[in-house]
Amino acid sequence: MRIGVDYYPEQWNPQFWQEDADRMAETGVKVVRLAEFAWSVLEPRQDQFEFDWLDTIIRMFTEKGIQIVLCTPTNCPPLWLYEAYPDAVQTGTDGNPIAIGVRGHRCYRSPAFLQRMEIIIDQMVSRYKDNSHVIAWQIDNELEANFCRCPNCQEGFRNYLQEKYQTLEEMNRCYGNTVWSGSYSDWSQVKPPMGSYAKGWYNPGLMLDYHRFAAADTERFVQHQLACIRKHCPDIPVTTNTWFCENHVDFHKLFRSLDFVSYDNYPALRLPQDAESLHSHAFHLDFMRGIKRQNFWIMEQLSGGMGSWSPMSQTTSPGMIKGYALQAFAHGADTIVHFRWRTAVQGAEMFWHGLIDHSNIPGRRFEEFTELCSQAEALSDIANSAYVSRAAILYDTDTDFALNIQPQTDGFHYLQQLKLWHDACLHCGVNTDIISADASLEGYSVVIAPALYITHPGTAEALHAYVQGGGTLILTLRSGVKDACNSCIMDALPTVYRDMTGAYAEEYNPIGWEQQYMEMDGKTYRISQWCDILRANGTKVIASYQDGFYAGKPAVTKNAYGKGYAYYVGTAAERQFYQDFMRTVFTGCGTDCIEPLPLGIEVTTREDENTIFRFIFNNTDKTQHFSLNDKEYTMQPFEMAVERIAK
Amino acid sequence: MRIGVDYYPEQWNPQFWQEDADRMAETGVKVVRLAEFAWSVLEPRQDQFEFDWLDTIIRMFTEKGIQIVLCTPTNCPPLWLYEAYPDAVQTGTDGNPIAIGVRGHRCYRSPAFLQRMEIIIDQMVSRYKDNSHVIAWQIDNELEANFCRCPNCQEGFRNYLQEKYQTLEEMNRCYGNTVWSGSYSDWSQVKPPMGSYAKGWYNPGLMLDYHRFAAADTERFVQHQLACIRKHCPDIPVTTNTWFCENHVDFHKLFRSLDFVSYDNYPALRLPQDAESLHSHAFHLDFMRGIKRQNFWIMEQLSGGMGSWSPMSQTTSPGMIKGYALQAFAHGADTIVHFRWRTAVQGAEMFWHGLIDHSNIPGRRFEEFTELCSQAEALSDIANSAYVSRAAILYDTDTDFALNIQPQTDGFHYLQQLKLWHDACLHCGVNTDIISADASLEGYSVVIAPALYITHPGTAEALHAYVQGGGTLILTLRSGVKDACNSCIMDALPTVYRDMTGAYAEEYNPIGWEQQYMEMDGKTYRISQWCDILRANGTKVIASYQDGFYAGKPAVTKNAYGKGYAYYVGTAAERQFYQDFMRTVFTGCGTDCIEPLPLGIEVTTREDENTIFRFIFNNTDKTQHFSLNDKEYTMQPFEMAVERIAK
Amino acid sequence: MRIGVDYYPEQWNPQFWQEDADRMAETGVKVVRLAEFAWSVLEPRQDQFEFDWLDTIIRMFTEKGIQIVLCTPTNCPPLWLYEAYPDAVQTGTDGNPIAIGVRGHRCYRSPAFLQRMEIIIDQMVSRYKDNSHVIAWQIDNELEANFCRCPNCQEGFRNYLQEKYQTLEEMNRCYGNTVWSGSYSDWSQVKPPMGSYAKGWYNPGLMLDYHRFAAADTERFVQHQLACIRKHCPDIPVTTNTWFCENHVDFHKLFRSLDFVSYDNYPALRLPQDAESLHSHAFHLDFMRGIKRQNFWIMEQLSGGMGSWSPMSQTTSPGMIKGYALQAFAHGADTIVHFRWRTAVQGAEMFWHGLIDHSNIPGRRFEEFTELCSQAEALSDIANSAYVSRAAILYDTDTDFALNIQPQTDGFHYLQQLKLWHDACLHCGVNTDIISADASLEGYSVVIAPALYITHPGTAEALHAYVQGGGTLILTLRSGVKDACNSCIMDALPTVYRDMTGAYAEEYNPIGWEQQYMEMDGKTYRISQWCDILRANGTKVIASYQDGFYAGKPAVTKNAYGKGYAYYVGTAAERQFYQDFMRTVFTGCGTDCIEPLPLGIEVTTREDENTIFRFIFNNTDKTQHFSLNDKEYTMQPFEMAVERIAK
Repeated sequence: MRIGVDYYPEQWNPQFWQEDADRMAETGVKVVRLAEFAWSVLEPRQDQFEFDWLDTIIRMFTEKGIQIVLCTPTNCPPLWLYEAYPDAVQTGTDGNPIAIGVRGHRCYRSPAFLQRMEIIIDQMVSRYKDNSHVIAWQIDNELEANFCRCPNCQEGFRNYLQEKYQTLEEMNRCYGNTVWSGSYSDWSQVKPPMGSYAKGWYNPGLMLDYHRFAAADTERFVQHQLACIRKHCPDIPVTTNTWFCENHVDFHKLFRSLDFVSYDNYPALRLPQDAESLHSHAFHLDFMRGIKRQNFWIMEQLSGGMGSWSPMSQTTSPGMIKGYALQAFAHGADTIVHFRWRTAVQGAEMFWHGLIDHSNIPGRRFEEFTELCSQAEALSDIANSAYVSRAAILYDTDTDFALNIQPQTDGFHYLQQLKLWHDACLHCGVNTDIISADASLEGYSVVIAPALYITHPGTAEALHAYVQGGGTLILTLRSGVKDACNSCIMDALPTVYRDMTGAYAEEYNPIGWEQQYMEMDGKTYRISQWCDILRANGTKVIASYQDGFYAGKPAVTKNAYGKGYAYYVGTAAERQFYQDFMRTVFTGCGTDCIEPLPLGIEVTTREDENTIFRFIFNNTDKTQHFSLNDKEYTMQPFEMAVERIAK
Repeated sequence: MRIGVDYYPEQWNPQFWQEDADRMAETGVKVVRLAEFAWSVLEPRQDQFEFDWLDTIIRMFTEKGIQIVLCTPTNCPPLWLYEAYPDAVQTGTDGNPIAIGVRGHRCYRSPAFLQRMEIIIDQMVSRYKDNSHVIAWQIDNELEANFCRCPNCQEGFRNYLQEKYQTLEEMNRCYGNTVWSGSYSDWSQVKPPMGSYAKGWYNPGLMLDYHRFAAADTERFVQHQLACIRKHCPDIPVTTNTWFCENHVDFHKLFRSLDFVSYDNYPALRLPQDAESLHSHAFHLDFMRGIKRQNFWIMEQLSGGMGSWSPMSQTTSPGMIKGYALQAFAHGADTIVHFRWRTAVQGAEMFWHGLIDHSNIPGRRFEEFTELCSQAEALSDIANSAYVSRAAILYDTDTDFALNIQPQTDGFHYLQQLKLWHDACLHCGVNTDIISADASLEGYSVVIAPALYITHPGTAEALHAYVQGGGTLILTLRSGVKDACNSCIMDALPTVYRDMTGAYAEEYNPIGWEQQYMEMDGKTYRISQWCDILRANGTKVIASYQDGFYAGKPAVTKNAYGKGYAYYVGTAAERQFYQDFMRTVFTGCGTDCIEPLPLGIEVTTREDENTIFRFIFNNTDKTQHFSLNDKEYTMQPFEMAVERIAK
Repeated sequence: MRIGVDYYPEQWNPQFWQEDADRMAETGVKVVRLAEFAWSVLEPRQDQFEFDWLDTIIRMFTEKGIQIVLCTPTNCPPLWLYEAYPDAVQTGTDGNPIAIGVRGHRCYRSPAFLQRMEIIIDQMVSRYKDNSHVIAWQIDNELEANFCRCPNCQEGFRNYLQEKYQTLEEMNRCYGNTVWSGSYSDWSQVKPPMGSYAKGWYNPGLMLDYHRFAAADTERFVQHQLACIRKHCPDIPVTTNTWFCENHVDFHKLFRSLDFVSYDNYPALRLPQDAESLHSHAFHLDFMRGIKRQNFWIMEQLSGGMGSWSPMSQTTSPGMIKGYALQAFAHGADTIVHFRWRTAVQGAEMFWHGLIDHSNIPGRRFEEFTELCSQAEALSDIANSAYVSRAAILYDTDTDFALNIQPQTDGFHYLQQLKLWHDACLHCGVNTDIISADASLEGYSVVIAPALYITHPGTAEALHAYVQGGGTLILTLRSGVKDACNSCIMDALPTVYRDMTGAYAEEYNPIGWEQQYMEMDGKTYRISQWCDILRANGTKVIASYQDGFYAGKPAVTKNAYGKGYAYYVGTAAERQFYQDFMRTVFTGCGTDCIEPLPLGIEVTTREDENTIFRFIFNNTDKTQHFSLNDKEYTMQPFEMAVERIAK
């Protein structure tokens, strides 16, 4: 298992280079990522290229046996480019170019920018195409959906819609534009949402299409760069490093043509004090692994306290640097690149801490990193193992976009819903994939589809087939609400899934922050956010409400359908409910759960042909004592144990 | 008493129309409001009119005996209009056209918009002018003051000021423009407030005039539409549906030329848990009845949970739909139109719930609505009755505008002040009007003028005459502070009312959120916001302060003046104070109070020649037991009892 | 000792003038400040000057023996000027002229504005240059750093940087512009920070230079005005009234060429309820005295409740008007001018209360002011005394700017750090100066340099010399972090001071709001914000951490260096710690402390050749009983006692 670092030679006096390379090699660093933001150093003036420094540093590393990941430096075009080609700057929601702050202001559709991008990539790739130490390319950095409103992008959006809907009539129909006299009578009237209204003040159909368009635009941009790289290097693995942000891309589509997923992994530095708060980053790791359903990289891994555009966070507690990296291995990461070798002493990010502090004196964190490097080396036998799951949680990009556009009720958040279910599976010790709602469900004994708000006919069909074929499906509040136009489906909830659930919602109560209660198996659980008031319709009632005018009415039901079962969970509950419920569900369908362990103990497995590797991780800042399979464990904060079980 | 619904046929597949009309007729719906936002369907392209669908739907309803209210669809001009006539779009405080979100972006002064408005109204009115089922017209929707800053509106504002002040010298004098060198030396310098400073960062005189102008502009706009309607229908009743919002109109002036008041009635869905919080919507109902001092309509009545541009609210508790409508009848509503028949499945407002859910399956709320329709029918004998009040609370539009521009102290809000007094009157069971400060005071035994901040000489004279003639007047903190220019009056507070109150403020302390105490009749009351430190000057001290350097000084006084009495209440107190105080005042001037009932029980009356109709409303979500006039009552949540007493 | 008032004759009907002048004279007012905002009255139209009214009012005052301070009225140019010369309006961060609200919109570099400024000043100064009653001039009002982004200012900024760095290469190097490809390749690319990003989203080096430039621009502006005044009045004392605000100037540079410091003094109206909150304005007074290290003026002194662009504050408690003014005398003020004589009845500031209310009836506050005038007269013997300090706290303008650009940790604020140390000195009864970090340290037995974040070689040298020569220096967290480019210094903290402190930080933990503990002399203290985890390196450990992975590690150390001592305090603690610590430090170096008095009792001294004047001030709203030097004191809220001790 490989450990790497992000390194920015251009930010340091060359006097440091050799010393840094030596120290990396000693420490056990195997990979270095370079050049992500180096455009202005590689091409300080238009068509004046300076690669000598990069040649030098690459040579220094490769002489030490360190492999290289090179980045296309397109996240930050140089200032001369913005000056020469003003349309390279993004346009804001007010129709004016945004001010240039420190980074990432390019429009993905600017012809001039794209032309200069082709040239710099061509220069780089052709120069290093035969260097066998360059093992992968990263495209740009932390790409978001392209929310630019420049004339090019506006026209692009119009074309996108024209291609999708063919006629204005069809588009008006899908958006319901007769509401508030919003019908388009000419394509020229079609624009991205402009102005700074709250999201809910635009047509929901338009908003969803706009996010889809902006995400697709980023995919197009990645394809464009990929072609530039492939021209010279048809076989080299290519990725981009992704992250969660408000204007995020469609992760599944973005990586379709890329070779592997890489992710920026910044788990919590300050652990929550109350038992209700989830903090494990395992959800994100399983999400990333689920994108391509294969092992992945971390391209930026937590190395110290964060802060730059805000006050600094706390530093990492002892064990976090080692533990959070090992946790990523345990969830399917193969290579983990730490951000960053040494904390920057200049620029806006100077308080986003690297492994080594400003002082350049290696300290506690670096010591822990050194231990990590050894441990990673000792884990070489897991390199060809995979994470095999019996359960899956479905994530739908359209649903994510749509629920961001129209928040349903106070406290409700789509990813938070998924995390609650994921946390329960993790607590049961059941490996779980987080996969796209349109992925194959083969091989899963349980599938959880929380808040499957936007309905795609294919997905609905697949879910029916899955249950009919013997699968166990869990559906929840806000499922089947909308069609693919982001219009409400005219049927009792969960609409297209009613035949499977048996039960349906007579009515709902969006209780938001208010706390109410429900009862399951004689145990009472706090609920909030939402109550679907169900009519059981002959199906089995699993839990019932205890408050309001719907006291006694079903909150959770279970229905036999085909050879399988469909559960419906009509409310959002406290953490304990999900754990209790999933334990029952897993047990009911023959999937083994581990015994209940203290909160924060995470048990997962990877396996290869001969061996099951079991990972036991103490994801808390306390020493934990517990027994598992009759064995006693005492684990330090963030300690990871790896057990090898012959198959 | 008539129950109606708001219906948007253009938003639904025509296959639903007949079924909807049939169900309305069965349910007891008597009125349907149509076409409020239908411009783009009536005139999809300029001068291409399509009225067939509206003819059809009107026929369907009238065949079922349902009457029609038609709306001018001007709130939302079609997109082709904005495209063809860019000046139809409002201009923001930055001097640029606002972005088009979903609705209401028109400038009320745009020549092109006004011309197109005339044409579409002419088309509609001339088409339906002889249809006797069309019983009223609604102008536009939820009109606000015209806060547009386009060149037309800027010029309009300048003309308005020129007409008002004649000379710059006079305007400079009224605004006190020598402060901070703000004097105008040329009319060209006069502009509406531009930019996005906090309100207090502009000249208060200019700000008040600007709100007056913007409100007057909306009145002008309504007159314009009224003339268009009257051209073909000289006798049909015309209204507009109004609401409270930050940039609200001058309600009293707006409705002067209209035939009746109609209002959007959305009472609280979530009842307060503490006894201090007022939640009854009775204040708004009495306010609306007071505008023209005649019975009124509800044009949009709560039908379910709200939400669209924000997370959804809770749904209506059982009894609310029926009870809140009956409460409106009890306060002088004659027709109540529910918003809306069925929840929209498209457009930004899809989570603002109608009587029927997205599923189109009538549920609990619809059942309650059906009961309401029967009860309304059973109340036909109150149709010609009126709400007769012995007490009045004065509302002054200029004061409302001015206190919005310069908030006085933390926690102080003009309408909240009025509501506290209104709540106390309601608690005493004394019918109370909320009327314009310049309305006639004839017939009232008690008049309450809370925070009469802006002083109009006519009003001040009328109040003097009223007390001199034997009336009982209650004045409070922040009375007589300003003249009509929004300048402070140079006299001890309450300035022009000092002769009546006897007492005056030596000083004041704006204590804001801090809690202090005062004492009245041996009882202690919490106070906050403001303390006028009174000098009693020989008048009777009713209550005294208990805190700070003014402990022992008068807080509330009573003074004989002419044949009447003037009270002065120099602070803002807890709810109980107002109830105790008003009970004493009413009793003192021979106005009967009911015995104290549980909080939330509202007793009001309407009367006709022969009968007094007494309404007893349990405006809480608890079952209440109490006795009134030796009769025992047990009332369900939101239950309304109607008793008929022969005169 | 002189008491004065700010008076705005142009805002009042001339009928009030004589009465006001008479009352001032009777009351004991010695100075009146005039004309600060009078430009539109002095020059109502371009080149049309009207000085008669000012002549009149000056005559009225001088006839009564009242002296005059005249202001250049440039804070508010008249509207005709903005209209005729649009470039006189400031440009905002979006590149557009800001909207004109009520005041202060001028660009300090607009050629037209500067020309009109010269003319109006010339008119004023030449007119009154021989009037011996005019004893001083005030330049403009509450000047801030010139944060205008107009083309003139942009060019000015570019020139400033060109002069400073000579080459782009040097500037790129200092800013670290290779980070995120931000290197300039042409001077044309250099701009002030534009747009509305959070501060941390720009290059920290550029941001610091921009604040330096904007402050220097204001200094240039003051020089310009000063030259205009000096042209006619080479000897008259000139000042400007300053204040603390976010975009503040470099106070020390601003006053370098001015004759005395004057300050707007608005101490707290609402006293904190918890013992942790500092509220004494003594810090600000000592700061202002420290700017020129000489006695100073208050040009605006609290006279009543505040409020205008926000709800009103509480009024002054009894004793505040008198006490806060006497407190200023006790800290080196010589003349105190109250803002303002009478509360404005017009304009945006009408609720910022003067000594007399809108009513023009003198009340409680005015009575207290009258007593103040007598007491000030009785203090005439302190007129030539000075405030002599044995301790100094260093303030560094660059550090203040830089910590504002990059906040370090939640709860951390530079001035707050200084205040905590100042509070401790005040509690010990040790006179303390707050002086510029580059000021001479001669004569101080203790120097405290909290968070000396930006490092200037001269200052670092002076501190070394100071300790080497026998001084006691206290350094704290966030010292020596940055060089003058605002780049991090590559050394263990406190970097350039490590040789003096002996101890250095192995690591730090920005704990923000979290509460942890440290132990000193067996006593436990709450700490928060930051923990430098020290390696003592043989130096004495004064206090140690009690929490986290660094429990037991040093938090505070003391090191012998040369003939003196350097302390290092690596965390931010509760108030008590600073008091206990400073008492030990002072005692240790032979500086006498008073015995511990109740919180809020402030003891300071002024002295002349023969006498020490001791001031004992009860800066609380409670009556306090205590003994000091075996004498018993009972002091009313805000009471001041003055004791004269022969030398």
